[in-house]
Amino acid sequence: MSILALRSDLIPFLEPFLPQNELSSSKPFVTLTYAQSVDSRISKGRGLRTTISHKETKAMTHYLRFHHDGIVVGAGTALADDPGLNCKWSPSDGEPTLQTSPRPIIIDPHRKWKFKGSQMENLFIQEKGKAPIIIVKQVPPANERESGVTYMSMQVDDKSGQFNWQELVHKLKSDFNLNSIMVEGGAIVINDLLNRPDVVDSLIVTIGATYLGKNGVEVSPLNGDFELKNVTWWRGTRDAIMCANL
Amino acid sequence: MSILALRSDLIPFLEPFLPQNELSSSKPFVTLTYAQSVDSRISKGRGLRTTISHKETKAMTHYLRFHHDGIVVGAGTALADDPGLNCKWSPSDGEPTLQTSPRPIIIDPHRKWKFKGSQMENLFIQEKGKAPIIIVKQVPPANERESGVTYMSMQVDDKSGQFNWQELVHKLKSDFNLNSIMVEGGAIVINDLLNRPDVVDSLIVTIGATYLGKNGVEVSPLNGDFELKNVTWWRGTRDAIMCANL
Repeated sequence: MSILALRSDLIPFLEPFLPQNELSSSKPFVTLTYAQSVDSRISKGRGLRTTISHKETKAMTHYLRFHHDGIVVGAGTALADDPGLNCKWSPSDGEPTLQTSPRPIIIDPHRKWKFKGSQMENLFIQEKGKAPIIIVKQVPPANERESGVTYMSMQVDDKSGQFNWQELVHKLKSDFNLNSIMVEGGAIVINDLLNRPDVVDSLIVTIGATYLGKNGVEVSPLNGDFELKNVTWWRGTRDAIMCANL
Repeated sequence: MSILALRSDLIPFLEPFLPQNELSSSKPFVTLTYAQSVDSRISKGRGLRTTISHKETKAMTHYLRFHHDGIVVGAGTALADDPGLNCKWSPSDGEPTLQTSPRPIIIDPHRKWKFKGSQMENLFIQEKGKAPIIIVKQVPPANERESGVTYMSMQVDDKSGQFNWQELVHKLKSDFNLNSIMVEGGAIVINDLLNRPDVVDSLIVTIGATYLGKNGVEVSPLNGDFELKNVTWWRGTRDAIMCANL
């Protein structure tokens, strides 16, 4: 799949919300980004891959991936979408390289997702994408580990599925040198992080010109209401993009 | 309450979505318009009046009221917000007049809302707003009718609360000469009309730079998903406005 050229007005629009290189901080820069319908759905239904954004805003996703060292998705999204999570954008004078793709990070406490046979493995074999770090509750015994995969263990509350976001992002920086991380979904991860201004540095939301209806998978923060800060909007052919701070 | 001056770029932006004077049609022009948070909530909770939009997009609401003959809200919204529903905008060379305010239409099958003591009655007494038409299941006996109010009866399904939108808007035109009607809410009315391209001619949605969270009153169409047509976006200081056709 090729991507459309990035609309040039997106570059200055996104610039204030891209990772700042504060290499001295022990916390990486975290960007939360997703595409929703007008009625705040990210898919038609659980496990259904749904096109929401226009091709020109899809190009932005790859531009963002270019600017981040790591990319986080939940296991539900990995299972539903089989995403490649590599970067297909490059500055005009170069080809996308393995180096410009972010490191995929899959939050999968109970190891439901498999690297083997995935689009991500396919790209890794072709040297077009990196191999993932899988966040698990317990690192599996040697004979159950998948080739290429790095496992990182995290305390996870079995009932709520909650874990310590601060600990996760700090470890991704200290153990893997990931100075910037973008989080792409799914709904469980997004709804949790919308309430975490201590974790999220930038919010970038694409709103597609579509309604997905009551049965869609909804995005809305679990706890309370809040005003966004430093809000700015971009208009595309059919979509709008909002950048803000929590 | 005074309103901010209308931002001049809103006028050409809105123009294609304002009522067209097809006086020959037996159906009035219907505009569905509301303000939502990014997570598609129109209030923090049932019955809670919630500020979502910036003052500059509030000015647009009054500009839209200037361009419509009637304005519809559900009884829930009338009870929660006690809205005036008059028009405070006028072309720069004139004052708002009673004539430029739309006729309020309250959908209140079981007559829960009272005109007496309302902000609407207050404006009516001051000759700054019109008296309402109340849509009821049954026109009350003479001794229960409120002074100033016009009652119009409609078949309403007791279980679902559904009624015939086509019949309603046609009657508002034939019986009251209302050639253009804007619908402002609340959620029950909006969620129903989002599935009615046969009724709604224009959709105008303000998206405020806020999240209202899981407990908020949500807007999302009851039935299925659909792409919007003729989508166009406007960017304000904090809000975006989307105009489209269903």
